[in-house]
Amino acid sequence: MTVRHLALLPRGTVRALAAEDAVAVVPIGAVEQHGDHLPLGTDFLVVEAVLDRALEQLDDDDTTWVRLPTMTFGHSPHHLFTAAVSLRPSTLSDVLADVLSSLSQTGFRRIVIVNGHGGNDELVRLAVKAHALHTEGTAAACSYWTLSAETTADAAAAERPERTPGHAGWFETSLMLAAHPELVADDRPFQPSDPPPLFDRSPAPGLTVERYGEWPRVGGLTDDPAEATAATGRLLLGRRVAGLVAALRGLDQATTSAPGDRLPSTDRERGPHA
Amino acid sequence: MTVRHLALLPRGTVRALAAEDAVAVVPIGAVEQHGDHLPLGTDFLVVEAVLDRALEQLDDDDTTWVRLPTMTFGHSPHHLFTAAVSLRPSTLSDVLADVLSSLSQTGFRRIVIVNGHGGNDELVRLAVKAHALHTEGTAAACSYWTLSAETTADAAAAERPERTPGHAGWFETSLMLAAHPELVADDRPFQPSDPPPLFDRSPAPGLTVERYGEWPRVGGLTDDPAEATAATGRLLLGRRVAGLVAALRGLDQATTSAPGDRLPSTDRERGPHA
Amino acid sequence: MTVRHLALLPRGTVRALAAEDAVAVVPIGAVEQHGDHLPLGTDFLVVEAVLDRALEQLDDDDTTWVRLPTMTFGHSPHHLFTAAVSLRPSTLSDVLADVLSSLSQTGFRRIVIVNGHGGNDELVRLAVKAHALHTEGTAAACSYWTLSAETTADAAAAERPERTPGHAGWFETSLMLAAHPELVADDRPFQPSDPPPLFDRSPAPGLTVERYGEWPRVGGLTDDPAEATAATGRLLLGRRVAGLVAALRGLDQATTSAPGDRLPSTDRERGPHA
Amino acid sequence: MTVRHLALLPRGTVRALAAEDAVAVVPIGAVEQHGDHLPLGTDFLVVEAVLDRALEQLDDDDTTWVRLPTMTFGHSPHHLFTAAVSLRPSTLSDVLADVLSSLSQTGFRRIVIVNGHGGNDELVRLAVKAHALHTEGTAAACSYWTLSAETTADAAAAERPERTPGHAGWFETSLMLAAHPELVADDRPFQPSDPPPLFDRSPAPGLTVERYGEWPRVGGLTDDPAEATAATGRLLLGRRVAGLVAALRGLDQATTSAPGDRLPSTDRERGPHA
Amino acid sequence: MTVRHLALLPRGTVRALAAEDAVAVVPIGAVEQHGDHLPLGTDFLVVEAVLDRALEQLDDDDTTWVRLPTMTFGHSPHHLFTAAVSLRPSTLSDVLADVLSSLSQTGFRRIVIVNGHGGNDELVRLAVKAHALHTEGTAAACSYWTLSAETTADAAAAERPERTPGHAGWFETSLMLAAHPELVADDRPFQPSDPPPLFDRSPAPGLTVERYGEWPRVGGLTDDPAEATAATGRLLLGRRVAGLVAALRGLDQATTSAPGDRLPSTDRERGPHA
Amino acid sequence: MTVRHLALLPRGTVRALAAEDAVAVVPIGAVEQHGDHLPLGTDFLVVEAVLDRALEQLDDDDTTWVRLPTMTFGHSPHHLFTAAVSLRPSTLSDVLADVLSSLSQTGFRRIVIVNGHGGNDELVRLAVKAHALHTEGTAAACSYWTLSAETTADAAAAERPERTPGHAGWFETSLMLAAHPELVADDRPFQPSDPPPLFDRSPAPGLTVERYGEWPRVGGLTDDPAEATAATGRLLLGRRVAGLVAALRGLDQATTSAPGDRLPSTDRERGPHA
Repeated sequence: MTVRHLALLPRGTVRALAAEDAVAVVPIGAVEQHGDHLPLGTDFLVVEAVLDRALEQLDDDDTTWVRLPTMTFGHSPHHLFTAAVSLRPSTLSDVLADVLSSLSQTGFRRIVIVNGHGGNDELVRLAVKAHALHTEGTAAACSYWTLSAETTADAAAAERPERTPGHAGWFETSLMLAAHPELVADDRPFQPSDPPPLFDRSPAPGLTVERYGEWPRVGGLTDDPAEATAATGRLLLGRRVAGLVAALRGLDQATTSAPGDRLPSTDRERGPHA
Repeated sequence: MTVRHLALLPRGTVRALAAEDAVAVVPIGAVEQHGDHLPLGTDFLVVEAVLDRALEQLDDDDTTWVRLPTMTFGHSPHHLFTAAVSLRPSTLSDVLADVLSSLSQTGFRRIVIVNGHGGNDELVRLAVKAHALHTEGTAAACSYWTLSAETTADAAAAERPERTPGHAGWFETSLMLAAHPELVADDRPFQPSDPPPLFDRSPAPGLTVERYGEWPRVGGLTDDPAEATAATGRLLLGRRVAGLVAALRGLDQATTSAPGDRLPSTDRERGPHA
Repeated sequence: MTVRHLALLPRGTVRALAAEDAVAVVPIGAVEQHGDHLPLGTDFLVVEAVLDRALEQLDDDDTTWVRLPTMTFGHSPHHLFTAAVSLRPSTLSDVLADVLSSLSQTGFRRIVIVNGHGGNDELVRLAVKAHALHTEGTAAACSYWTLSAETTADAAAAERPERTPGHAGWFETSLMLAAHPELVADDRPFQPSDPPPLFDRSPAPGLTVERYGEWPRVGGLTDDPAEATAATGRLLLGRRVAGLVAALRGLDQATTSAPGDRLPSTDRERGPHA
Repeated sequence: MTVRHLALLPRGTVRALAAEDAVAVVPIGAVEQHGDHLPLGTDFLVVEAVLDRALEQLDDDDTTWVRLPTMTFGHSPHHLFTAAVSLRPSTLSDVLADVLSSLSQTGFRRIVIVNGHGGNDELVRLAVKAHALHTEGTAAACSYWTLSAETTADAAAAERPERTPGHAGWFETSLMLAAHPELVADDRPFQPSDPPPLFDRSPAPGLTVERYGEWPRVGGLTDDPAEATAATGRLLLGRRVAGLVAALRGLDQATTSAPGDRLPSTDRERGPHA
Repeated sequence: MTVRHLALLPRGTVRALAAEDAVAVVPIGAVEQHGDHLPLGTDFLVVEAVLDRALEQLDDDDTTWVRLPTMTFGHSPHHLFTAAVSLRPSTLSDVLADVLSSLSQTGFRRIVIVNGHGGNDELVRLAVKAHALHTEGTAAACSYWTLSAETTADAAAAERPERTPGHAGWFETSLMLAAHPELVADDRPFQPSDPPPLFDRSPAPGLTVERYGEWPRVGGLTDDPAEATAATGRLLLGRRVAGLVAALRGLDQATTSAPGDRLPSTDRERGPHA
Repeated sequence: MTVRHLALLPRGTVRALAAEDAVAVVPIGAVEQHGDHLPLGTDFLVVEAVLDRALEQLDDDDTTWVRLPTMTFGHSPHHLFTAAVSLRPSTLSDVLADVLSSLSQTGFRRIVIVNGHGGNDELVRLAVKAHALHTEGTAAACSYWTLSAETTADAAAAERPERTPGHAGWFETSLMLAAHPELVADDRPFQPSDPPPLFDRSPAPGLTVERYGEWPRVGGLTDDPAEATAATGRLLLGRRVAGLVAALRGLDQATTSAPGDRLPSTDRERGPHA
């Protein structure tokens, strides 16, 4: 078996796997309001759904993936106006630094954070950058919704990038209907805001705009969850799973100890290095 | 049903329960080496075993208990010499402060932390003290192994206070054999240290003694797990569950909104207030 | 005149402008190695070139833009292996929080950070999010290279997204040849790395990958600056200036006190709100 | 003479003593309200009384004890509602870390903190744990009221564990009548609270319960000081002095350089190592 | 009596004095090497000598001075190469902020820090500035050696400003011979350094110059203590006591509640307000 | 040429200069209200005027001076009542530590901070002390107004030490009239406060006194700017330039690698080393 749960293994096994270049996988989500129809745990439930399906598909390759327990709490101060369990940015940065440092001390030289919550995105990327400055090995991070790969034409056609991921709307509700239908309320009223939330509809691409009181003003949702369906959710989920599988395989190949095996790099993804 | 999982509920339900004086319950454990026979997650697995059994017994009373997802990572720097995922003391303090603050902002007026790891003990107690200084309501904390109540004469007779909790020895191994036997290795070799670990066998009651390098010197265990049995584990577990039930009921009654119903206080427990 | 320099104005004028809903504009760059052909100040010099050209174009509208002195130092720890003046992430976060808070206390209700350095990107976005949680008004942030608008067909055709922004390569060298040709060395040798830098060529879109020692390994450049020309630089610069003008106008219109004037929102830009 | 005051010695003597394995002794108390009959300095005055008597009894053995000036300020935020000089938990943690680090840099390999205030208890224990993780030698900590040893049958009979230490009640008032009678007011009115303070009378053993506003509600005292007498105080003091003498001797013997001399360990005291 | 010791008073008296506009006086020193002839506690012993003599002289006026226990530890990292108990700058800043905040919460509206150690000078001045920004009342700070007033012509003639205060040399040794002769060693060898210590002999007035390793290089003393005498020490001490008396009287009069009584200000002292 | 601008140089040149023992020069000012007649940037504009004139005069010697971009923001919380961009003390300390550390990592062994704002004075001195404790080389700091040297008898005669530097009064206004007359308003009304500001007119030399609300009470100026003239400003500026030239030359000679060349030390300047 190539997928293992770190917390269920004794120390000797963990250190042996790390010494054999296993990849430690750290899922992180959030606990925060997702409207009246989705549970507070939506973000960690979805990232677990994506990750665990991806790890199943990776179970037949030569690499061992050591999955950590999900970090359920994330950075959600903008949802405390109703209901959330939120870490401050500095707290979450410290947690991530400690987790990465612990894994390195335990012997891991390859670590990837798989994120399920928008409010964590900058922080997980900063965390791996800071870690790799001073620690041997490779640290990586991604947010599941930015990853998608070819699955079927239907799946590609189902995408609505302008509503992805949004918050508690079409995208997330579809995913939850696919992954945890029993936790989704049937009744999903939505009152569109006018103007729509600035944080979600920026007046210009690339411009982050944050206005005081915007989340309460729009009621905590970005778009209408009414059109969400389980069938759509399965298509969307499939593409993210495929995307994560590709990302994890790519990471594995790019950082394996035998550098000759590396995949050709792609020009599609460029970090901000100005 | 009176036991609910916070992460599986939508925001409206959570706020309504908080407004009805439900008690938020925050389990915390650790991920750290427990010898070659127990998994890294032992501390959170055991505290979950104790807590979930206790909540089942509380399921028939009038109070609603809102259980949070378990905080799996704790303060375990002394185990990083082999394998652990450890938060620094300042990090864990910040996490606990943020969680308590979030729960208060979400409306909870009664919160209790149930701890499964010795290295967290001081920090969870400090956290509830700091929180209650400036926030309305009541915050409480306990470590499961200090709680025990009358169950059966057999259970009481099974206790070996000098090995409780210890680390990865008789007590914890017994509990794991009762709660998660599939995760316990059959082979449990133990080499007693001479002298025994100072942190575990203080030269005087009440004196904390920490010597550099002591955990590696003794191999990471405090006492021999060989005598541990599932039967003993069930007795020990039963007493902690009963103790936690009593503690949670006591907390509930002492802090319920109708103060006339309070139980007589006991002289058995006194905090340090010199 | 509608563009003013905060540091050159007396207090009364500053407070009056803030009261009239002027927008405070905070440029930030970096001081870090840019190969042997570009100066350490490249990032702040370029963001100043973009911003000051954009402000000239905005000089005829009804809104007053109050430009702050450029924050020259940014978050550049990955360049300390040769030469940089770098702030730690926590330091820069504190600086940004203090600047935003100061501007709010001075009366500004609209603030935008214009960033010229990739290493600052996450931090400036986090800063405006944190600020707007607790402070009246709107705070915005952007990185200049992500902004581009229609200028000419030639300009659009000149783009090479796979080398934008990169570090000290085609894109930045072109911009510096357009803005500060006297600071660019004629001799620009480049030795491609094999494999190319992981941080720049991720094995998967959306995956941040950081490997220890990668910047020194590749010599501090991402791509060959040899093909850079002043003519290309002028085209690229023109598109970023136009993009920033559009972004600033969009911000102005979306947050002006008379909400009826707001531009229709666009679906093109969505923040991460999963 | 084997008891020395660090602050009264020149540097050469201090370093020579440290090199000869002297034990540095760090007393810490608090400055906080103790009702209308005891002075604010009660906690440091009592711990000094216990410690200096203990050091007198240790003056004839082979070990040198190097006493530091008393740290008079402790962690007393719960007393700021009337009168206190209190350090925040993070401040006191930093102070303790700095003091321990300084002593190690000055050459000491054995350090013990002797605490006189309940609010410091967790913090001094955390401090020695953190210090010993990374620094050669041994660091220890105790709170004087938890230490008691056989003195006379009368002394043992005088104990009232349910009122020890309490705050400004029977126990502390008795000790002050023995150690500093001139600082104790004759008039000691007490109004029992109903219900008694939750922090002092927990509904369950081992459960820390903190309720907002509890200290002001009960007037800052835990129990009636009226029955306190100087004679009782002398008995109580004698037992704590004997307990501290035993603890310090035990520490000395357990950590002396010649390990063959170590005392048999005791099973009576076990730290929390779950 | 108008001089009172805060730690020896019960809460009611402390709050009453604060309400009557008493001035809280906070002495702070250091514990650090002072050569082979002076004890580590020299700085706090001297500041106590100055302060307590000054308070005796103030004992007949209408103002009550409430003296706190001396803060013995200061900021002395430059002396850890031999022997010191030093707080980091951030730790000492936090301690001072906590002490000032506690005194304000306890009711004091006038507080003065009297400092005996050069390494604390900037930090105590920063502390009172920060405190007074947000807290009603007045906070003041001084270092005893900068204060001197007319005493006798002999005393004035005895001054050697170029050796004041220095470290463990003529000035401090003279003061200790006057205040604590039993703690001063007869043998006081001194080896002048060439060049003399840069931190003590700056190449230009007003320029602080710090060179790595300078304190160990010069052996921890700034100038020859051989010429120090008790008679000189008494003269020097007398002038500082007189200076502190004048400073405290000046502070009292400038901040007393009846503003009409204020002394004319002097042009002699100007803070840096560029 | 011996004066170079760090931000305009490529990495190779910077490292080569550092290796040749060039001195890095870090100017710092502030952005804060200076009455209704001077711009917010007065402090950084003046320190730049002093520094750049001084560097011109140093342009003919053997030492290379590498000037950094000016740090425009300083520690100005006392001016936020009207208009300022202020860093908290801890933020500025972190910035200074990062800048010093970066310069050392980039190869500089000699660094000097030249300060133009009173509120930064303690912090820049603390920063160089902290840096030099653990880093090879020399770090120095000064505030320009404390430096003056012989220029002409007229210049010396023009000094009014009791108004130097003050805030936005005679001294600063004169300097701005000399350096940036176009930024000084003709109309300069002043209403003297009674009593004058305590922070500026201490009741005793050497005593820092800070009273809540004092800056707003006196309107943000310390003394009347009416008498300021450009001619006086030129004289004052000339003396500060000469003083800074002397200080930089002195620093250079005292810390050059050939120690035999050192200037005789002076007794005029003594740091506080009690």
